[in-house]
Amino acid sequence: MTATGARPTTPTLDEVAVLAGVSRATVSRVVNDSPRVSPEARRAVEEAVATLRYVPNRAARSLVTRRTDTIALVLSESNTQVFSDPFFASIVRGLSERLADTDLNLVLLAARGESEQEKIGRYVRQGHVDGVILMSLHSDDLLPDILAGAHVPVVLSGRPLDGRPVAYVDADNAGGAAAATRHLLSLGRRRIATITGPLDMVAGLDRLAGYRAALADAAPPGVPELVAEGDFTEAGGLRAMTRLLAEAPDLDAVFVASDPMAVGALQALRAAGRRVPEDVAVVGFDDAAVAATCDPPLTTVAQPLGEMTSLMVELLLDQIEAGERAVGTRVCGTTLVRRASA
Amino acid sequence: MTATGARPTTPTLDEVAVLAGVSRATVSRVVNDSPRVSPEARRAVEEAVATLRYVPNRAARSLVTRRTDTIALVLSESNTQVFSDPFFASIVRGLSERLADTDLNLVLLAARGESEQEKIGRYVRQGHVDGVILMSLHSDDLLPDILAGAHVPVVLSGRPLDGRPVAYVDADNAGGAAAATRHLLSLGRRRIATITGPLDMVAGLDRLAGYRAALADAAPPGVPELVAEGDFTEAGGLRAMTRLLAEAPDLDAVFVASDPMAVGALQALRAAGRRVPEDVAVVGFDDAAVAATCDPPLTTVAQPLGEMTSLMVELLLDQIEAGERAVGTRVCGTTLVRRASA
Repeated sequence: MTATGARPTTPTLDEVAVLAGVSRATVSRVVNDSPRVSPEARRAVEEAVATLRYVPNRAARSLVTRRTDTIALVLSESNTQVFSDPFFASIVRGLSERLADTDLNLVLLAARGESEQEKIGRYVRQGHVDGVILMSLHSDDLLPDILAGAHVPVVLSGRPLDGRPVAYVDADNAGGAAAATRHLLSLGRRRIATITGPLDMVAGLDRLAGYRAALADAAPPGVPELVAEGDFTEAGGLRAMTRLLAEAPDLDAVFVASDPMAVGALQALRAAGRRVPEDVAVVGFDDAAVAATCDPPLTTVAQPLGEMTSLMVELLLDQIEAGERAVGTRVCGTTLVRRASA
Repeated sequence: MTATGARPTTPTLDEVAVLAGVSRATVSRVVNDSPRVSPEARRAVEEAVATLRYVPNRAARSLVTRRTDTIALVLSESNTQVFSDPFFASIVRGLSERLADTDLNLVLLAARGESEQEKIGRYVRQGHVDGVILMSLHSDDLLPDILAGAHVPVVLSGRPLDGRPVAYVDADNAGGAAAATRHLLSLGRRRIATITGPLDMVAGLDRLAGYRAALADAAPPGVPELVAEGDFTEAGGLRAMTRLLAEAPDLDAVFVASDPMAVGALQALRAAGRRVPEDVAVVGFDDAAVAATCDPPLTTVAQPLGEMTSLMVELLLDQIEAGERAVGTRVCGTTLVRRASA
């Protein structure tokens, strides 16, 4: 995807046919290794190909248009994490649906380790995709720098942690977390804990900030912060809830920064003999499928994923069409979905 | 990835530098649109680029070596199905681990619909990957033909339904299903049902064939076949089990062709007041993570997924190295894993 002022013209199949003195179909057959070609015609075509430096390959032709009609969803997570987290699945599904009616292909590349992320960078630099949607940034991530060096349009899913100028689409994580916390306050709860996401990720940090802001702005004096860090997995939610119960046995509510963690928290509460919502009210985040089916069904914060994936594609296509990177950003509002758990 | 007898040579950066009378670094800066170049040098480089038809892009250079160092896992399933089935996750994880220590990248492309599969074919034909591992074939799938026309090395995960000559790696599905059924017979069960996978898929057909073979070979006379078709999902397993209980209320065992379906079957049995294994013994297939954690833990048939993914990569690299397609096949044995459900 490197740019140059003088774009070389690529010889066409027709030019090869004229020089070789054969039909277009014959050139095509030679190029595609068909057996239905005489040795003489084959030799004539091969000479014309060599003379014209004709590159019989769509990858080469795509250099002229500079388009592969393919965008990559790059996830800086291990495949294990990608395939066990329903949020990633929702994003992939949303992007697939958004692209289904277009000529655009979606390829998925996922890696957390440095050498594997370098491999992704190489693939993108080699021009195999027109643009990248990059997801799940940790603060130590190399991918933003790797992709910046690849001169390819990029849209981040989630605000960049370091504030670099880059296009992104995000949910109003802080606003959603504050709404969840205010809802727990409105139920009369006064010992409200939170289980955060990883605090090297924007979604982890912003949801914690929203919880804190709501306690600071809307709580009566003396309502404390009770914080345990989780990792967005069910097992992590179970562990964090167990820690919170040990540290603050009188807690009466918990805002959990993802639904899989909330499912783990429900297990820990059940194991400790606490009733939900009578003893402890629980609010999750994401409105994953499990939120409606777990016991009790989860009150949670929904992100408009369909809208968000559409906006990511739109911001990316804008850059691809314009042939330059741009810094549009969109932040989408969230909705509190009330069910039985709070 | 199309092949041609006369491979055109691609001009190098050095040749451009010599013709333009500038340094290699200057050519590189022009090509990469760096501002640190004088207008005169830029013009000289651009003229040399045009004269030599130099293509300043790694995608073009990779046409010479014909290598992208990337293999594609192509799944003929919707992304929804891919991300909800633990078997796909295991395969992706296995491939990632197998490739982690190599220079090879893994990209994932998934689509069930015709126009989306055509897009995948276009991407592969354009030479953006060195080879393809193709998974989850339904009998109406277009991808085998699409990829055959792309002249790219292919390894199937699973025996091809139409017997076409192509490299593949498969588990001994029939053998595993027969072992599961014989195990139920050895427990004294005589009304043994099966919930199959989709019968337009090899794993569905072969596991049903194994169940039938075991009943024919190892059962006392008069033990009937009781068959309900499922779709490899939990909801499908629940529905199929409900149908079986209506048709054969006295059944005392069920071999279920995937663990997610077996989890659904357990729900249906619980809803019908049947105890597992006392009233109905249940055996699953795959040894997914859920098999160890569901209630009761599932007796199931394990496939050697690590070995299978390694073999797929090996068969694919053999073809890529050799520069031609080959038809190696490997069928891996399965293991009955005994837990509480049977």
